[in-house]
Amino acid sequence: MTGSVPAELVALAHRLADAARPIVARHFRTPVAIDDKSDKSPVTIADRDAETAMRTLLTQHVPAHGVFGEEHGAERTDAEYVWVLDPIDGTKAFITGLPIFGTLIALLHRGQPVLGVIDQPILGERWLGVSGQASTFNGKPITVRSCPTLDRAYMYSTAPIMFPGDLERRHMALAKQVKLFRWGGDCYAYGLLAAGHVDLVVENSLKLYDFAALVPVIKGAGGLITDWQGRELDMHSDGSVLAAGDPAVHRAAQQALAG
Amino acid sequence: MTGSVPAELVALAHRLADAARPIVARHFRTPVAIDDKSDKSPVTIADRDAETAMRTLLTQHVPAHGVFGEEHGAERTDAEYVWVLDPIDGTKAFITGLPIFGTLIALLHRGQPVLGVIDQPILGERWLGVSGQASTFNGKPITVRSCPTLDRAYMYSTAPIMFPGDLERRHMALAKQVKLFRWGGDCYAYGLLAAGHVDLVVENSLKLYDFAALVPVIKGAGGLITDWQGRELDMHSDGSVLAAGDPAVHRAAQQALAG
Repeated sequence: MTGSVPAELVALAHRLADAARPIVARHFRTPVAIDDKSDKSPVTIADRDAETAMRTLLTQHVPAHGVFGEEHGAERTDAEYVWVLDPIDGTKAFITGLPIFGTLIALLHRGQPVLGVIDQPILGERWLGVSGQASTFNGKPITVRSCPTLDRAYMYSTAPIMFPGDLERRHMALAKQVKLFRWGGDCYAYGLLAAGHVDLVVENSLKLYDFAALVPVIKGAGGLITDWQGRELDMHSDGSVLAAGDPAVHRAAQQALAG
Repeated sequence: MTGSVPAELVALAHRLADAARPIVARHFRTPVAIDDKSDKSPVTIADRDAETAMRTLLTQHVPAHGVFGEEHGAERTDAEYVWVLDPIDGTKAFITGLPIFGTLIALLHRGQPVLGVIDQPILGERWLGVSGQASTFNGKPITVRSCPTLDRAYMYSTAPIMFPGDLERRHMALAKQVKLFRWGGDCYAYGLLAAGHVDLVVENSLKLYDFAALVPVIKGAGGLITDWQGRELDMHSDGSVLAAGDPAVHRAAQQALAG
């Protein structure tokens, strides 16, 4: 059982997102030298600089905390508190000019995600989830919606490449049963689920920095987020993710994926 | 050969988009009764009301022109000028709260698309293409980018359901050769192509109101848009669409799709 998250850490999470936002936005829709073989793509620069800015704030304010970032690696991951950073989740969206990627910021307490931010720099949208509190979208409380059965559910998955081999068949067995299925969501789909616009997000091959921030956002909005076996997500998860607004749909989806 | 588009018709196209925008935006992310079997979904209401608002303006200002709308059908389609309206292209995006759908407005002159608007009501983004003029994004001229080969191309297609039977194999034969492929674009992907962020959009099963507005936007930005056989798009097209920024990529994609 984790306790409540100190208010100053919630404020710090906002400061991290505030710092990353203009850096990411500055490189959005800037020209790409598509035949450039070097490491200087806009997404690379934006990713790296945004993570550096967030890490600088963490070093200043909570030097004892651990950090695990997609770009600059891990430090002190055995600390009581560990921050997990993904400056740009949804790289394909970012580099093609589609404003539905996100900056992901999570705080783990003893390995459990207790705080999560999904920030969309271009739209100026921010989802915040804090353990024991109602999740918010731009400061306003949000909740998932009810959806009693799969055949009424709106479902997202990011890309077919996530489902190699037999997983493709299992994923399609589920996708065929829902009312609406759409590819192409990344973190944004989880935000839409938390806000009650989507009922189901099913993914695979996610890393800790892809899913850690989503957990408090979904849970604080009244939803469920587990792996495909229904287990809680933590640093040891296998990368499969099943998020649902309604427990009935979560259960039915888990069964369909098992088949 | 069509002549230049009268300035007052360009101004009228803007007025149509201005009229549709607040109507569509008002219904975005409003609660959906997902077990509602009636015809009163937000997307239905927004679609219908936005088209009505646009048709009212056309009746007032150009009563002799024809109109072909997705919601309210066709009138005077044998007129010299025919307006083609799709209030919400990207229904799945709209009803799941994803702000990358668009309002499409096209003007046909003797059956050929000579003016096109792609309007994104939530982001406040507008692409305009007018025959013989440079296309614009929010008033500023845009151009496609060069991309010499498929293996450097960023490609979009909306959804696998567009490619039944053998078309799936032909589509994947192409998608496997590009640098980046992403599902989930709708009209927005064509806007990104016209603005130089995407190199290739490949679709099928499009209706006249899905593609008519895209033609002047892509052409006025220096790109190519045809069917899969390389033929110009008009009211008799088969619904296959191949848009590219660079002629080399258009040619290579056409060959890959033929295989």
